[in-house]
Amino acid sequence: MENFFSLLEKRVEDCSSLLCVGLDPHGADLNENSAAAAQDFCLNLVRQTAPYAAAFKPNAAFFEVFGAEGWLALRHVVESIAAESARLGSKIPVILDAKRGDISSTAQAYAQSAFESLGADCVTLNPYLGKDSIEPFTQNAEKGVFLLCKTSNPGAADLQDVTVNGAMPLYEHVARLAQQWNARGNIGLVVGATQLDALSRVRAAAPNLWFLSPGVGAQGAELSAALKRGLRKDGKGILLPVSRGISRAADPARAAAELRDQILNSTQN
Amino acid sequence: MENFFSLLEKRVEDCSSLLCVGLDPHGADLNENSAAAAQDFCLNLVRQTAPYAAAFKPNAAFFEVFGAEGWLALRHVVESIAAESARLGSKIPVILDAKRGDISSTAQAYAQSAFESLGADCVTLNPYLGKDSIEPFTQNAEKGVFLLCKTSNPGAADLQDVTVNGAMPLYEHVARLAQQWNARGNIGLVVGATQLDALSRVRAAAPNLWFLSPGVGAQGAELSAALKRGLRKDGKGILLPVSRGISRAADPARAAAELRDQILNSTQN
Repeated sequence: MENFFSLLEKRVEDCSSLLCVGLDPHGADLNENSAAAAQDFCLNLVRQTAPYAAAFKPNAAFFEVFGAEGWLALRHVVESIAAESARLGSKIPVILDAKRGDISSTAQAYAQSAFESLGADCVTLNPYLGKDSIEPFTQNAEKGVFLLCKTSNPGAADLQDVTVNGAMPLYEHVARLAQQWNARGNIGLVVGATQLDALSRVRAAAPNLWFLSPGVGAQGAELSAALKRGLRKDGKGILLPVSRGISRAADPARAAAELRDQILNSTQN
Repeated sequence: MENFFSLLEKRVEDCSSLLCVGLDPHGADLNENSAAAAQDFCLNLVRQTAPYAAAFKPNAAFFEVFGAEGWLALRHVVESIAAESARLGSKIPVILDAKRGDISSTAQAYAQSAFESLGADCVTLNPYLGKDSIEPFTQNAEKGVFLLCKTSNPGAADLQDVTVNGAMPLYEHVARLAQQWNARGNIGLVVGATQLDALSRVRAAAPNLWFLSPGVGAQGAELSAALKRGLRKDGKGILLPVSRGISRAADPARAAAELRDQILNSTQN
């Protein structure tokens, strides 16, 4: 049985990439506001960018908004990633960006939805309900999770930055909990690439965990500064999701290839 | 334009009830493990318990697990609540228990999904991402939200109970934020009915907000103690969701009627 992060690391090596291609079929970017258009948008992105993608990250909200048809489209998109993986001879993990968080049998139902019904390999989760809300997703080491830790939106300060136990920001407390909870080696953390202090603090608290670090491209994170603080000593450990920076480019394949190379060069500085 | 909580209060008066009937079509309770069985389970509960329900609370996970068919079933369940409301001549609000939490255009898509595609009146949200993750759901005062504040699962202590800013548990900080953010009067809080200290602290921090307080029935919360601490001075302000305590009863209509009456009697103690 393969661990989710071993699978991710194999893919990172196969394509020399830390780029995660975000699949956000936002209404404003579609030819028409329909599930079919969302699906076409994503299938095209998958086809064009697969060679450079360490992972794909479909965002559940932009499918859910189309109801049942959106849900079918999302499943087709996940299937198309499996087909591209087979064609390339290298499995590309699917991270479902769903930010779920609930307890006991409800969490089990969400886990079944993400991993079995949809076929995702990993899901983003919200840690506010604590350890027993995470466990139904981590019982199978082949599947992984990224817990929200420090995000880069203005409201992040409202909870994540408050000082807890007189000692550290709440996000660092979450990083330490993730480090403790990681018995099966399949927990990672979401830490915004624009949050340089947070990247340093979280890397110190969780030396080996993978980070999912949005902010490169649209949000203007400075790549080499983020990598310097977020990379592990083995030069891995940070996955950089980019959505609009690729999907809105005139040539998405080229944009993904260039981002892959920029990241690669920055890791070597 | 009617405010969500005015709508809820009108319904509370119409049916003399603070009971919220939870619609959790858990696989173990269904005749067969299918979206059709989940839908039948819920339609039957809605029909039997509508006269005693201040609100219905379908749990998204138990529909999502059936993919596209589950999503259609959920919409049919929401429609059936509208039909029962019309029959009774009193609108019964629908609280979608989805615990979503994301930012900017993603949060907008989730809001559109809950309120427009599905037709819910209110949704449960996770506050970890802060104010800008809540605003897309509260822009329209006709729609309401309940923010997770203090839950009753074992893991709740991991984040919610840590002391922040040297002064109070994180959940109380969340209650104070909700009180600040409540410019349109459509924010409530989830506070477990088993959490008596939390009910007192959160009621002091947010004197007028509605609470959604699970724990009566299966989790064994002591009803009059919870009401004493959670009720507002006007005898309203706390909604008590019950799922299995009704759905697994031999006669769900009778179980709901008895719960409604027990709650009513306890508010008068």
